Amino acid sequence: MNRRRFPVVLLVHGGAGGVRAGGPQLRTIGRVLEEGYARLENGAAALDVVESAIRALEDSGLFNAGRGGRLQLDGHLRLDASLMEGEGLRAGAVAGIEGIRNPVSAARRVLESSPHVLLAGEGAGRFARFHRLAGMGPHSSRQKRLHQKALRAGPDWMGKYRTLFGTGTVGAAALDRSGTLSAGASTGGIGLMLPGRVGDSPLIGAGVYADNRSAAVSMTGEGESIIRAGLAREIAFRMRLGAAPRAAATVSLREMRERIGGAAGGLFLGADGAFALVHTTAFMIGGYRSGRREKISDRFLRV
Amino acid sequence: MNRRRFPVVLLVHGGAGGVRAGGPQLRTIGRVLEEGYARLENGAAALDVVESAIRALEDSGLFNAGRGGRLQLDGHLRLDASLMEGEGLRAGAVAGIEGIRNPVSAARRVLESSPHVLLAGEGAGRFARFHRLAGMGPHSSRQKRLHQKALRAGPDWMGKYRTLFGTGTVGAAALDRSGTLSAGASTGGIGLMLPGRVGDSPLIGAGVYADNRSAAVSMTGEGESIIRAGLAREIAFRMRLGAAPRAAATVSLREMRERIGGAAGGLFLGADGAFALVHTTAFMIGGYRSGRREKISDRFLRV
Repeated sequence: MNRRRFPVVLLVHGGAGGVRAGGPQLRTIGRVLEEGYARLENGAAALDVVESAIRALEDSGLFNAGRGGRLQLDGHLRLDASLMEGEGLRAGAVAGIEGIRNPVSAARRVLESSPHVLLAGEGAGRFARFHRLAGMGPHSSRQKRLHQKALRAGPDWMGKYRTLFGTGTVGAAALDRSGTLSAGASTGGIGLMLPGRVGDSPLIGAGVYADNRSAAVSMTGEGESIIRAGLAREIAFRMRLGAAPRAAATVSLREMRERIGGAAGGLFLGADGAFALVHTTAFMIGGYRSGRREKISDRFLRV
Repeated sequence: MNRRRFPVVLLVHGGAGGVRAGGPQLRTIGRVLEEGYARLENGAAALDVVESAIRALEDSGLFNAGRGGRLQLDGHLRLDASLMEGEGLRAGAVAGIEGIRNPVSAARRVLESSPHVLLAGEGAGRFARFHRLAGMGPHSSRQKRLHQKALRAGPDWMGKYRTLFGTGTVGAAALDRSGTLSAGASTGGIGLMLPGRVGDSPLIGAGVYADNRSAAVSMTGEGESIIRAGLAREIAFRMRLGAAPRAAATVSLREMRERIGGAAGGLFLGADGAFALVHTTAFMIGGYRSGRREKISDRFLRV
């Protein structure tokens, strides 16, 4: 264990968008923060705490991730997730995985037990089953009902479906006692989307990045804009050059909006423990805990 | 048409690694450069020229892309490609696509005809067939023979197989008369790799990036290291902050090697027409053309 004592920090989000958080979502975020923060204080590794926090959000069924994920246009549930740790820049991710209960743990397996970073499609599921990760039960009747309802909704299905399913993607970022940063994300993507579409969440450098020399970042929002702007990597690099989390995120998010449009938000955590939760959307569900500083809300710094 | 006349530039690579280029590969690079450069001089868009250059390299069968791509462990040919243009940061990519002759043109279709950036697996093939892109013929007897031979080669199959198939990934970067940058890449990935593995080539910000305010970048080499370092996005951002292409690439490539290992190279082209071809590997097959400056070789700036 490193002798230097870093402040521990845990940040969690449950998606950015136009929808306010419900009570159950905020309570789940609160529980996840409390459990994860206690583990960090007891010396747990940032990577383990980020994975556990995202697993809990996947298992809750209250977010667009894991068993709560949105069905694609063909009625299949294909999920994306990634994890990265900032000491050795180790990373793992899965895209379009089917039939696996916790995509974030499949990402962890890719990080630990393969020479690769990203597995997509059938190969990702096969890899996860080979490593005996828990399977996913059948879609819930609620998921199927909403999918049918959305298909019948006509031209404005996307808005309706999105609202019905609440917000979105989940993610976390942490700084542990040894000074290591980690970040991750997990999502069901866009409801009714084209089968095979991959968003920013499983893409290292787009939706997620962690580097002890710069920052841990987990993004959420309109994935295509986040990818095209290369947001996680750019914001981390700005922080490496000395920008504060809030300033780095604000500049990059505004620049994305002015140049190509798109709404997004995220968690931004520096290696010194400084952090910010920033969003261009009306709301972002999430929370933070660091020492006595704690907040669980659906609004943080809106820019 | 923009009244300001920019110098046009075309850069092409056919992979970085430990293997020297053969005559047919160098001649193909030369032909692709000549044709593409003439089109740029006549006012063609950078995006069109980059796509055509990569198509020609895919069709040659001499590189690890398109019909020359390496078979994965299960004997399937799954291909990756991406394209980006720097004016509007428009991007398209496919990962693990099967049965489509020109993955780079599938990436172009994603860019033009979908609201998405990346399609992976079966969904990518379905999308390309819907848009009537040409199908891929059966694997060549040479591909199948080499695949069988490699499977029989035992523990050192990877080295043998890689050598048998020559170098790798192809890519291009261009600056057109209107001052727009574009970059792209196409690959068969690692020979005999785990089905579903996705490398840096289809990942915007990892293997490819293009932004008129910063740079056009196309990487090649060990994809996992390129993704973890977030190379294309980082080098483009360094150039945006004022670094020359050569300096930006050298710093980022050396930092990757020192921190996490991995060998790579790439094309680095600024919005002012300044450029560099830099690699940490023994060789990188490629070429450039800008005004009277022209070179076709398997060695450029090794750092």
